[in-house]
Amino acid sequence: MLPRVILLATGGTIASQPTEQGLMPLTTADGILDFMPSLRQLAHINARDVFMLDSSNIQPEEWQQLAQAVREAAAEADGIIITHGTDTMAYTASALSFMLLGIQIPIVFTGSQLPLTHPHSDAPGNLREAMAVALSGRAGVYIAFQHKVIYGTRAVKMRTLGFDAFDSINLPPVGFFDADGLHLQPEDGSCKPLAVAEPLAIDSRVFLLKMMPGTDPEIFDHILRAGYRGLVLEAFGLGGLHYIRRNLIDKLQAISQAGVITLVTTQCLYEKADFTIYEVGKGFQGGGIYGAHDMTTEAAVTKLMWALGDLENRRHLLTRCLTHEMGTVT
Amino acid sequence: MLPRVILLATGGTIASQPTEQGLMPLTTADGILDFMPSLRQLAHINARDVFMLDSSNIQPEEWQQLAQAVREAAAEADGIIITHGTDTMAYTASALSFMLLGIQIPIVFTGSQLPLTHPHSDAPGNLREAMAVALSGRAGVYIAFQHKVIYGTRAVKMRTLGFDAFDSINLPPVGFFDADGLHLQPEDGSCKPLAVAEPLAIDSRVFLLKMMPGTDPEIFDHILRAGYRGLVLEAFGLGGLHYIRRNLIDKLQAISQAGVITLVTTQCLYEKADFTIYEVGKGFQGGGIYGAHDMTTEAAVTKLMWALGDLENRRHLLTRCLTHEMGTVT
Repeated sequence: MLPRVILLATGGTIASQPTEQGLMPLTTADGILDFMPSLRQLAHINARDVFMLDSSNIQPEEWQQLAQAVREAAAEADGIIITHGTDTMAYTASALSFMLLGIQIPIVFTGSQLPLTHPHSDAPGNLREAMAVALSGRAGVYIAFQHKVIYGTRAVKMRTLGFDAFDSINLPPVGFFDADGLHLQPEDGSCKPLAVAEPLAIDSRVFLLKMMPGTDPEIFDHILRAGYRGLVLEAFGLGGLHYIRRNLIDKLQAISQAGVITLVTTQCLYEKADFTIYEVGKGFQGGGIYGAHDMTTEAAVTKLMWALGDLENRRHLLTRCLTHEMGTVT
Repeated sequence: MLPRVILLATGGTIASQPTEQGLMPLTTADGILDFMPSLRQLAHINARDVFMLDSSNIQPEEWQQLAQAVREAAAEADGIIITHGTDTMAYTASALSFMLLGIQIPIVFTGSQLPLTHPHSDAPGNLREAMAVALSGRAGVYIAFQHKVIYGTRAVKMRTLGFDAFDSINLPPVGFFDADGLHLQPEDGSCKPLAVAEPLAIDSRVFLLKMMPGTDPEIFDHILRAGYRGLVLEAFGLGGLHYIRRNLIDKLQAISQAGVITLVTTQCLYEKADFTIYEVGKGFQGGGIYGAHDMTTEAAVTKLMWALGDLENRRHLLTRCLTHEMGTVT
């Protein structure tokens, strides 16, 4: 008997067709399968349209809707493929990694840099590779794209045009494809998933602040005044902020004392943030300010939104690896 | 007769020493030279301390001070080396590329990931390579770091700990070192420097906004209310913004009509932004909104601050390559 796979379509370039307003997502889940009849030889596929959006329009409300659709589909599937635009796929995959903690089957995001119907499209290859991961039996949330398999919390969109759009940051890809098929790294047990009550709850009142030299401290007053509950701060290097003339460290401590939860990450793409090394970083340790260690910004934003969804029970998880999003803090 | 080189020290890890508060910049320009006596065999070196700061504290006011020091030193030097912390070196080098347009000698930034006095320090090698670029006769602003020579407008700090801290983005490094010495790419004439009146003038009232799914449109109201004159917007992919539920495109157009100048870039590290391709990007073309093409965020922020320093005369330069910061727009 063929394994059961559910294809959840959400729009994106893969489903796009040219219009007078530019490319727009128009191809349905059934339309995708009609274009790829060979996939039906590998699995009994059930196709559903969750929504049909350019992924620049996919926001926390759509994460909720999609996570709910995955939960419902998971009961009757051996694996789930989600087609999604590339622009925010890394955010959605990371958000769902937290919202689906403890999922028992493979949830595999894929998409393409050119529409499925374009003669040079990367979509057929990406769909076939996503199918292989969906059939692998390996539980968790992944992105399968251009021969790489990446944990949902480790992917970053690196290229606006290249087919090799995603990289796995601060951790090698968990799998890859070559002429010999799919190769998956074994689970190393370093990041054991844990059971969480109501994992779908999130709070999107997070501000993402990327520092630049001369960032005006007034933005911290605004973050507090406007009612944000969390801040992801992309600092310099290991976690530096300026404090002469424009004192960001005092401001950060002030919003922290007022209850805003901050995750400090680095604007360097690679390697960890660690604000204990330099004098400019030493100032801002304290309650409510957490180091994001080697998490990507995408992982930090989605993990913080998720933690704020039930802060009382999840606050202590901010510094713990839940779904491969961070290395062990030593 | 030996060529004349001026070493301008500004602090940074290269000058840092351990203290109870963490690493702090304490080593002077003369102290650097005392540690590297072999450099004096290559040039007549004049050493000056411009300031002594962790580069997380270096802001537009320091760029002004440093650019002025370079202008003064250039009259009496064949090349200038600037030692600088790595955290914001890419911003400072890019800012000075615009503020020193038309400079006739090499201006070479370098620094290190470990203090000069550390037994495993990368500083001695970086200083020797910076010296070679300073003696090359090639006019312009560069970063010399770990065997690479990068245009000041193309560098991004990629790694928080690795010695290979900087990459050249969307353009190969302009030079490299191997056992055969320094290899510099020939000038290709694609980005001819132009003479500009009062190039030191900048205006730092720029806001840097990195999008995330769910970014609240209220931030655009705040940017307008708080008196910012410019916005660098790190959009998704080729330049997407969400507009359902939270309509950022209308807000962007509103602040643009109110006179805020926006450079739209991408949060993808590689390849160009181009918001004419997708329907979600089509909406926000119009006066005051410019595509950053393949500029880094560091280049976009500093170029916009520089353009705002004399908007009447520089506005038309936002979409033109001035100092290797962008490829030719086709």
